[in-house]
Amino acid sequence: MSRGRDETPLEFSADQFRREGLIEPPDTQATQTGTGRVELRFSPSGMSARVPAGVTVFDAASWNGLAIDSTCGGHGTCKKCKVQITDGSVPVSRLDARAFTADQLRDGWRLACLAAATSDLQVDVPPLMTRPKAATVGVGRQVILRPAVQKRYVELEEPSLADQRPDLVRLAAAIDDLELVPDLHVLRRLPTVLRQADFKVTAVVVDEALVEVEAGDTSEQRYGIAFDLGTTTVVATLLDLHAGVPMSVHSMLNKQQPFGGDVITRISATMMDPEALGRLRTAAQSTLAELAGLVCDEAGVDPMQVYEVALAGNATMTALVLGIDPEPLGVAPFVMSTATPQNVMASDLGLVLHPGARALLFPALGAYVGGDIVAGMLATGMDRDKRVRLFIDVGTNCEIVLSDGDRIVSTAAPAGPAFEGGAIRCGMRAASGAIEGVRLDDDVTLTVIDDAEPQGLCGSGLVDIVAELHKVGLLEDSGRFVADEVAKEVAPTLADRLTKVGEERIFVMHRPEGVTEPEDTVYLSQRDVRELQFAKAAISTGWSLMLEELGIEPGDVQQVLLAGSFGSYLSPSSAVRIGLVPKLPVLRIVSAGNVAGEGAKMALLSLRERAGALALLEEVRYVELSDRSDFNDRFVDQLAFPA
Amino acid sequence: MSRGRDETPLEFSADQFRREGLIEPPDTQATQTGTGRVELRFSPSGMSARVPAGVTVFDAASWNGLAIDSTCGGHGTCKKCKVQITDGSVPVSRLDARAFTADQLRDGWRLACLAAATSDLQVDVPPLMTRPKAATVGVGRQVILRPAVQKRYVELEEPSLADQRPDLVRLAAAIDDLELVPDLHVLRRLPTVLRQADFKVTAVVVDEALVEVEAGDTSEQRYGIAFDLGTTTVVATLLDLHAGVPMSVHSMLNKQQPFGGDVITRISATMMDPEALGRLRTAAQSTLAELAGLVCDEAGVDPMQVYEVALAGNATMTALVLGIDPEPLGVAPFVMSTATPQNVMASDLGLVLHPGARALLFPALGAYVGGDIVAGMLATGMDRDKRVRLFIDVGTNCEIVLSDGDRIVSTAAPAGPAFEGGAIRCGMRAASGAIEGVRLDDDVTLTVIDDAEPQGLCGSGLVDIVAELHKVGLLEDSGRFVADEVAKEVAPTLADRLTKVGEERIFVMHRPEGVTEPEDTVYLSQRDVRELQFAKAAISTGWSLMLEELGIEPGDVQQVLLAGSFGSYLSPSSAVRIGLVPKLPVLRIVSAGNVAGEGAKMALLSLRERAGALALLEEVRYVELSDRSDFNDRFVDQLAFPA
Repeated sequence: MSRGRDETPLEFSADQFRREGLIEPPDTQATQTGTGRVELRFSPSGMSARVPAGVTVFDAASWNGLAIDSTCGGHGTCKKCKVQITDGSVPVSRLDARAFTADQLRDGWRLACLAAATSDLQVDVPPLMTRPKAATVGVGRQVILRPAVQKRYVELEEPSLADQRPDLVRLAAAIDDLELVPDLHVLRRLPTVLRQADFKVTAVVVDEALVEVEAGDTSEQRYGIAFDLGTTTVVATLLDLHAGVPMSVHSMLNKQQPFGGDVITRISATMMDPEALGRLRTAAQSTLAELAGLVCDEAGVDPMQVYEVALAGNATMTALVLGIDPEPLGVAPFVMSTATPQNVMASDLGLVLHPGARALLFPALGAYVGGDIVAGMLATGMDRDKRVRLFIDVGTNCEIVLSDGDRIVSTAAPAGPAFEGGAIRCGMRAASGAIEGVRLDDDVTLTVIDDAEPQGLCGSGLVDIVAELHKVGLLEDSGRFVADEVAKEVAPTLADRLTKVGEERIFVMHRPEGVTEPEDTVYLSQRDVRELQFAKAAISTGWSLMLEELGIEPGDVQQVLLAGSFGSYLSPSSAVRIGLVPKLPVLRIVSAGNVAGEGAKMALLSLRERAGALALLEEVRYVELSDRSDFNDRFVDQLAFPA
Repeated sequence: MSRGRDETPLEFSADQFRREGLIEPPDTQATQTGTGRVELRFSPSGMSARVPAGVTVFDAASWNGLAIDSTCGGHGTCKKCKVQITDGSVPVSRLDARAFTADQLRDGWRLACLAAATSDLQVDVPPLMTRPKAATVGVGRQVILRPAVQKRYVELEEPSLADQRPDLVRLAAAIDDLELVPDLHVLRRLPTVLRQADFKVTAVVVDEALVEVEAGDTSEQRYGIAFDLGTTTVVATLLDLHAGVPMSVHSMLNKQQPFGGDVITRISATMMDPEALGRLRTAAQSTLAELAGLVCDEAGVDPMQVYEVALAGNATMTALVLGIDPEPLGVAPFVMSTATPQNVMASDLGLVLHPGARALLFPALGAYVGGDIVAGMLATGMDRDKRVRLFIDVGTNCEIVLSDGDRIVSTAAPAGPAFEGGAIRCGMRAASGAIEGVRLDDDVTLTVIDDAEPQGLCGSGLVDIVAELHKVGLLEDSGRFVADEVAKEVAPTLADRLTKVGEERIFVMHRPEGVTEPEDTVYLSQRDVRELQFAKAAISTGWSLMLEELGIEPGDVQQVLLAGSFGSYLSPSSAVRIGLVPKLPVLRIVSAGNVAGEGAKMALLSLRERAGALALLEEVRYVELSDRSDFNDRFVDQLAFPA
């Protein structure tokens, strides 16, 4: 133990200086080592963990699968999470002083949930007596329930001439483990509610804001909404924050669609029309508001009991929904207004929920690695896995994250609209009638969304057909359709599908009844193949440069996570065959699902996960590809399909 | 020096934990001594000061008239306020670490403006090199200019692909002595303003909130409005916060008047009509808004450059303007919703100023010793004067504060409406035509507001006429008019003015031309005298109980401050003669003026004074009179006039 401990003033508890989501400022001692991480060794388990400086001992343990006793969810109230620091120093917090004797404090006993690790520590953990409340979200992530939204039912003594404490002081004294900062709304209602409810009320706290006081015991009714604000699709999940379970989910197209399908066209709209920003903001906000209504209706939840929302979106979507001018995101050098929007109310997003409801917006790493990707990293535990893992969110803008278990790098690659069905002759979004899967042998086998009559080709179908054509030999490595003579030789039952529309060669995938002209069929054109080649080359250039950054061979990647509404539907084997991902056994390619939405849910369920998201901003190094002189060379190399 | 200093982490600067106006929490070491104060001894001056624990060394010195060098107003930026702590311990702040070498830090050198005194200290102060910027406000109070509203002009480097920091990070890095928390409004405008202004902008900061970013250098344009929200009269002062001078002042009647003249009738209104609270709130807010418009117009100041307002009002006015249900203030046990309204925006008060403008509402000691009195204590320096001083704000509710130079007690006495002209037959407010001064000798000499034809009697005139009638022998000590025979003997030239209206005896003060009936004259009735006796007995019971609390004889009071819009106009000698104030030489009775308004100005000009106001809540002991069994006995004793 440091001899300095006794001089540490008791009120300097780590908890006071760590607000929601804020870890220690970057100029702490630990950061001076260069990594910003400290090492914790736990006994008797023998487990050790490297975590960002400032993380509590409790978090460090639970992030790494080591359970420490706790029933209060880490508020310092249950006093069950007692641990002994046997090497290294942790200041005594105010609640420690209540939980332990002076001798115990001297011996290093601390409440793990308040003990911020700012230097390497050896921690002795007593055996588990109770099971913590937890929920499983994200990619198999177990999250200890500790929502920012808390409810506390209290029965207060009524005032008298001998006890004239203001109502707020009376309430705060009953909740003395939190430093409540009341909304004006609460001050207005407090006198009336307290007296109507005979001073038996439930305080609603979000982080440290006292946002409501409700008559009687409502402590089990607390809800939040997690939004995945995609450029194309917006998803809302209503969460019961008390039980840690989802209540209802809805999705719809982003009402910004009429301004263009991708972020660049929407940014351009604001540059050409001064009123477009306001209209884009309104469109996004009304999408969120409509979804909020749907999820509350379906679950029968009063929107006034939704006290927090979390939103994960890319940097452009985040800027637009807040009404921030997005122009600098769209032109070099691609700069955000802020990476960490703070102090946003749900009402600032146009949501009519509880008037004091807060909005948590996921922080962004860069203009093209936004809050959706940070949420995805959180949901996939990119920072808490020892394996070499590659995360790829495939879309118009493709975000790539690579971790070697210690370092994390990320970048964005401009893949273009091919995966969204844009610039593809028969391209369409992944809606009813879209070909989403293709198999070629003697014949063509199509998987069509809703088993409908095929109308066109969506992104996963595009990747499949190209991979399959290359496999059966109808496409050269260079991406060119083989000559007709060659086609008849390598794939005689399919060769007659190779034909022309105008001067361009095409492959007919589906000929509707009665159709005779090739241009009326559902087909893949030579130019479509080129579009996909450009897209996959951008992506593979991105990850190959990331691998080089960390000195890793493609074959050493232990897991590839395909994320995003498109990436999750991609056939792993086709992705490998066209070179969209490194050449790996298919089992190592995993569809991660809607990880942005999962990350948003995790942030609502757990302050710790929320802090983890902010910590990622420090841990992940963003690499700007447009700044690299070797990008174009690499890009040309990557255009061809793997032999 | 404590041997523990070297273990104190550098980032644990006192400044980080002391937000605007917040001194150390009450459970600091120093409080454990029972007084919550620490002693600072300054060399070479030999001056010593006892200040609340947590006050900075700089404040402790300047509060007590000892100037320490500073040109930045105490922001830690000019690094001129270097002092050496030669005994006692002060943690090293982050800015200390930049200002001093390791050797100097070990020798106790600190920046005085960041050095929070939490224990007794000996401080060596180098000779003064520059003069601090200061303004004189309140009752001869010299205030070091350190407004919460700051402006910083910065010229930023433009972003590049090699430097893609978000706009906010770029700005914050240029203002690294403040931890900026941006309003959403700023995030929205930031990209546009920065680029339109070639990255040369002025940041507007209120406390730690970044409320605006303006193109170019606007650093000299920053304004605030101080409001004295009285039950009767509302006063607004526009302050130039850069120069520390008032620009314009306006006052008007509180638009709540139609609901009743005093706080109780207005509280009653809300209890009888559920819509009255909303209407009272609107009335108060529109009064403030109209005054804000007037002061800005007169000074030619753009309301968008008013970034903060301060408001001092009694607890009921403060509740009503915020829309807080005032009912518990009006009935025993007289409880406030909160003593310290926080996080209020100027827009919450209905003001259309800068959208990010903050509102500082003075904290209250109790339901009947409100923010106006705390502001008054601040303006009169009740906590910073070694003399025995008695502060009396005379009105319907009379607030009394007594300090013996160390301890401070306060109470409220229910004086009733007499001083406002209420319940007095010919009573009126202090408006044109009101008799405000009276002298009796062989004749009656009246001082009338605006030298107009006398219309009635205002509070100061009431006190005068009663004091004069008692002096010339027409009123007995008991307050009864003398018999006609006695009158002819003691004051033959005045005796015929004693007559009757109905059964009640009266004294005619002014008989307008042509008037013959006594009831048409301006007169004082026997019942009027009784009303004044009740009022003055309530007040003198209040201060005599306060004197007993501190064991002080009335003759030991060194200064009586008469405050409030009524008290300031009172004749000190009349006040002594009717026993409204202790029997003291008239020179010790001082009219303090509109101290609530002065206090509000001080709070706008100085974060330190603002902190002082909050500190008063800890320092002043509130005594509830309605709880005292001896009140009625005392009250009866005090009804008579001093012989």
